Amino acid sequence: MGSVTRIGVVAPSSRFSKATAARLEAHVEARFPGGDVKVVFHPACFANHGHFAGDDALRARAFLEMANDPRYDALWFARGGYGSCRIAEAVRDGLKPEARTKRYLGYSDAGSLLATLYKTGFAHVAHGPMVADFGRREGAEAIDRALDWLIKGATTGYEPSLDGRPTVAFNLTILDQLVGTAIEPDLSGHVVMIEEVSEALYRIDRMMFHLTGQASIRRIAGFRLGRVSDITPNEPEFGLTPEEIVRYWCLRSGIPYLGGADIGHDADNKIVPFGPR
Amino acid sequence: MGSVTRIGVVAPSSRFSKATAARLEAHVEARFPGGDVKVVFHPACFANHGHFAGDDALRARAFLEMANDPRYDALWFARGGYGSCRIAEAVRDGLKPEARTKRYLGYSDAGSLLATLYKTGFAHVAHGPMVADFGRREGAEAIDRALDWLIKGATTGYEPSLDGRPTVAFNLTILDQLVGTAIEPDLSGHVVMIEEVSEALYRIDRMMFHLTGQASIRRIAGFRLGRVSDITPNEPEFGLTPEEIVRYWCLRSGIPYLGGADIGHDADNKIVPFGPR
Repeated sequence: MGSVTRIGVVAPSSRFSKATAARLEAHVEARFPGGDVKVVFHPACFANHGHFAGDDALRARAFLEMANDPRYDALWFARGGYGSCRIAEAVRDGLKPEARTKRYLGYSDAGSLLATLYKTGFAHVAHGPMVADFGRREGAEAIDRALDWLIKGATTGYEPSLDGRPTVAFNLTILDQLVGTAIEPDLSGHVVMIEEVSEALYRIDRMMFHLTGQASIRRIAGFRLGRVSDITPNEPEFGLTPEEIVRYWCLRSGIPYLGGADIGHDADNKIVPFGPR
Repeated sequence: MGSVTRIGVVAPSSRFSKATAARLEAHVEARFPGGDVKVVFHPACFANHGHFAGDDALRARAFLEMANDPRYDALWFARGGYGSCRIAEAVRDGLKPEARTKRYLGYSDAGSLLATLYKTGFAHVAHGPMVADFGRREGAEAIDRALDWLIKGATTGYEPSLDGRPTVAFNLTILDQLVGTAIEPDLSGHVVMIEEVSEALYRIDRMMFHLTGQASIRRIAGFRLGRVSDITPNEPEFGLTPEEIVRYWCLRSGIPYLGGADIGHDADNKIVPFGPR
């Protein structure tokens, strides 16, 4: 028992697919045939309440049950979607000391909870692949990268530009929508990596206006831009690339632009541990 | 000359259609056959720079030329789209005393400039129909409502719930994306009317999380919800109506929900003068 690593899977946003869960379980059993790694899906991952994997109370309770349970070594977000901002404050208020020692891994909508945990002082919070990435082309590589970090904190899957400065990574929309709220961590002096998916360029421009206009964000060490994929059509053509947009707003606001980041909504999404490496 | 009212039309966001401009001019000439009302389109309305009606410098200059020109009595926004947040600070820094006495009318993306003018202490700023509304079904009614306010400050087109408390109105996304920036006015004690178009319900929910999470917004007198039109599909069904979403976040944040508002992206969009009525 003692040598088994238990990873709890939670779905604080949209509901998860049972079929993908079963495939993931088979993959983990095949990779760890001795049974020394167990991935356990909380039943609430498959619940259904409108847009969400269960209502707010159920999703918060499910997260806290696994976070506060000493039998689990790590919590892994099943997928993004939408909904974790709704339960972030309830989760924060219910966390017990047992939750602090665990690793937490996810991205996209999960960013609202990563921010909350980081703001609360948790030391092992990271932006990186989720269970749903198993469904991507070459998704097994993303899954194994995630498992290696969840099981033993492996640094092999780390985003390569990490340089010792405290760093965080977020989906641009998620960061844009949490600044000024109770779950915004103090990002002074941090390298802030951003990535985006399925947004129009004019929206990305508007979010950068908003983000770089925040007094809090003007204290960061700088932005790094990950991949911006599946950009939705702009009529007429916007006229700037995502990098040009980010560079423009950085220049205008006096925030350093630090270059690219190897993160995004794809199987190559590397792991970014929050805080100093 | 002295009795002629001159309304300058500006396009600080996306470019405007020459054909609609010509139709609007004909409508105004027919309604005011004596020539005592002139609607003058700034040539920059028809300029073209990627997404925008000219680049940022041209759009800011065009706005300031008309705002600072004593021959114009009012400035009317041609249309929304995207782009006025990009030039709001340049406009603010270039405004002269001549600009203060004029009336300003628009909505949607123009909200970034309405906010800027209101924050700067302008007394005649209003949320209401734009030239582009002429293209809507029954758009002529919206145009005449706008003209009556632009020409003589008529109150007949005012939003009916105005009750003497200071009030503002914004597109939800525009307000969401200006809080915390240099153009956010102090809305303490204000009734804040919001409306939305072409957004998914989960985005509306997320924006309400963000907005109602702001310390500044928690000081408003309350929200009123206008029309939310052309909601984009949500898969699965979100499970809450726009009013239920706004009521939820108001309840959660302690901000009063004050009821509906007769505003929206439609021909019925009533006029909301910023500040106390």
